[in-house]
Amino acid sequence: MQSTIKGLLQKNASKIVLFVMDGLGGLPSADPKSPFKGKTELEAAFTPNLDKLAKSSACGLHVPVGFGITPGSGPGHLGLFGYDPLEWEIGRGILEALGLGLEVKRTDVAIRCNYATVEDHVVTDRRAGRPPTEKMRKVTERLQKQIPGIDGVRLIFGAGMEHRFAVIMRFPEALPPEAAMINDSDPQAEGRAPLPLIPRHPKAEKVAEIAQKFIDKAVAALKDEHPQNFVLVRGFSTHPRMPSFSEAYGLRGLAIASYPMYRGLARLMGMNAPDFSGDIAGQIEYMKDNWNDYDFFFVHFKKTDSFGEDGNFAGKVSRIEEADRALPAIRALKPDVLIITGDHSTPAVMKSHSWHPVPVMLSAPYVLGAITEKFSERECVRGELGIIPSVSLMPLALANAGRLKKFGS
Amino acid sequence: MQSTIKGLLQKNASKIVLFVMDGLGGLPSADPKSPFKGKTELEAAFTPNLDKLAKSSACGLHVPVGFGITPGSGPGHLGLFGYDPLEWEIGRGILEALGLGLEVKRTDVAIRCNYATVEDHVVTDRRAGRPPTEKMRKVTERLQKQIPGIDGVRLIFGAGMEHRFAVIMRFPEALPPEAAMINDSDPQAEGRAPLPLIPRHPKAEKVAEIAQKFIDKAVAALKDEHPQNFVLVRGFSTHPRMPSFSEAYGLRGLAIASYPMYRGLARLMGMNAPDFSGDIAGQIEYMKDNWNDYDFFFVHFKKTDSFGEDGNFAGKVSRIEEADRALPAIRALKPDVLIITGDHSTPAVMKSHSWHPVPVMLSAPYVLGAITEKFSERECVRGELGIIPSVSLMPLALANAGRLKKFGS
Repeated sequence: MQSTIKGLLQKNASKIVLFVMDGLGGLPSADPKSPFKGKTELEAAFTPNLDKLAKSSACGLHVPVGFGITPGSGPGHLGLFGYDPLEWEIGRGILEALGLGLEVKRTDVAIRCNYATVEDHVVTDRRAGRPPTEKMRKVTERLQKQIPGIDGVRLIFGAGMEHRFAVIMRFPEALPPEAAMINDSDPQAEGRAPLPLIPRHPKAEKVAEIAQKFIDKAVAALKDEHPQNFVLVRGFSTHPRMPSFSEAYGLRGLAIASYPMYRGLARLMGMNAPDFSGDIAGQIEYMKDNWNDYDFFFVHFKKTDSFGEDGNFAGKVSRIEEADRALPAIRALKPDVLIITGDHSTPAVMKSHSWHPVPVMLSAPYVLGAITEKFSERECVRGELGIIPSVSLMPLALANAGRLKKFGS
Repeated sequence: MQSTIKGLLQKNASKIVLFVMDGLGGLPSADPKSPFKGKTELEAAFTPNLDKLAKSSACGLHVPVGFGITPGSGPGHLGLFGYDPLEWEIGRGILEALGLGLEVKRTDVAIRCNYATVEDHVVTDRRAGRPPTEKMRKVTERLQKQIPGIDGVRLIFGAGMEHRFAVIMRFPEALPPEAAMINDSDPQAEGRAPLPLIPRHPKAEKVAEIAQKFIDKAVAALKDEHPQNFVLVRGFSTHPRMPSFSEAYGLRGLAIASYPMYRGLARLMGMNAPDFSGDIAGQIEYMKDNWNDYDFFFVHFKKTDSFGEDGNFAGKVSRIEEADRALPAIRALKPDVLIITGDHSTPAVMKSHSWHPVPVMLSAPYVLGAITEKFSERECVRGELGIIPSVSLMPLALANAGRLKKFGS
């Protein structure tokens, strides 16, 4: 479908805003003592602005990967951006590196790393005693200085929480996906020796060799850091190399997100995603300041998901209400197309991501409207968009923005 | 999608029940004198238990093969079990053998056979005078004794109605699908000679040779049975060799069905499907007795379809009411996921299977619910599942049973 869309693109001055409330979709509260019993988070929230807009919008639900499949954040956002998550996979190493704020290029192989404890050649603690984050940040910075590169391959370190970090191996030129076909060295259980790195494809041999040298050098540099005296690696992965947002859609995209991983995901698709920290008001202000320089604005609101993951129903409700209060400022920018949705569902009653279709509304001049009374899961079920794959949202956004020509004649 | 699902499986102790009312979907009665005028069979039926459950369930409609395509029983059930009917074909010979209660293995080629009358090398009656079933059962049993095998290939006969029977050729080892690329010998019209069997692929040569020897031996054995003095064969087919239910889903499946064909279909997918005869109460009792030994229970209720095929609107209504009365006993088992649906529609007004999407409800803890008032086609149209491919039901069942991990991170 993306190639069909590409053949129909036409330029204009329209502005598209995609406002993503992470983990938006919910389920009814089952708490008999709660005033919200029987209502989803969206239904329980006081959302006069969202509800008013829903009445004049095209509403529906979208399915990120497939019926019954619970998406991670990577596949969830790929779908929103119109890339089929079953076709484009974002490897574990890449996602970890993005989450730690590292930029990932097409010449990179990324790995997730753990500081670990090894005694007599056996892993005695895969998490090295869960050391303090701040202490390990300094250790990681020291490793970066001591091992800036190996055999012409640049190494880029990103410190994480406690024992976690990520490493990017930046090669001089782009690598094929097979270059990352290397097993984890993490034996996944204490009492076992770290596993040797074995390339599963001839094109992975060079990467395995560099990675083994990195481990050896890191272990040498950590010899006095017991119990953080070893490094286990996992999730070798290359850049997924999908067409960029401008190639696919002819759009200059700007991502405004406080969490590094979402900026990283947007950058993978070639969007501009400057470092940003601030609340939703700040995000809208930032969008306003950059309104003339972009065609597409991805605004990421994280807190709905966080409270959902915590099982904090009332907390998620209050974050939805916060987003609702921000809506007038977004609408004041008069985007030609405004899509409000989530990347997946995170029902507070499940304390996790879930497979449930995600409510969405699309506000633009040429919709039916006047079908739904409110922005909620149940109201969206009867909306004019129906229940559609997430990857259908970008074509709908482009069409509503007047950016797609007729197909055939 | 099945390979994606397979990669996400996780085990737990959950129980899934799939209750299939064959041919459930219907259309409004057009009889102006009927009290049911304008109502479908489901709408006309008094179904307090189904309606109550529908209120707290996820409802919708499913499409077995594709919009506008009327499925046979084979494709209908393949879809319910999550196997794309366009990808996995169950050959005519296989379906006939299953319907006669024969077990079909991966080493088998199955054919549909007719007793016929041949005079002066010409077929004068393709149905051999439609002889009595009981008479031909004895003839078939005699053939089984006289021709137990040919050249190391075992022959297994199954007697059918009147002139019909089926034969399985059981080879010593598994055969590729090409082994069944052989034309029918039935000339499809009287006054013509039976057609010679011609292999359409080198791998079919051995099968064609055995089948020709079988025909020759059978004709010799029938020389005194005029007008049942010949055998015509059709529908050469091999086991479809789809992944088994346990391979695909990690589920131990039990099929409880009174009709041999449905047991046979379930066995093709590797479910256990013991011979069973009894009514719905007996089926539920049997399920209860085997509750601890399986994860997935397929309960097949045939009579809705039979009355639909007969054009007996009131009869189909009464069978739906019979199923409704059985529902409390199913719910008493407390399955984690209960799906109630049909394998296709059989509107009494059409007296046949039809292409119409089939109403479905999925009862499990994590659904929206409170959308539909009743279990019916029109109410399901506005349900939270929407109108989905039948193959999406198994992923939804697994997700709702907590048997699928997150996709990506």
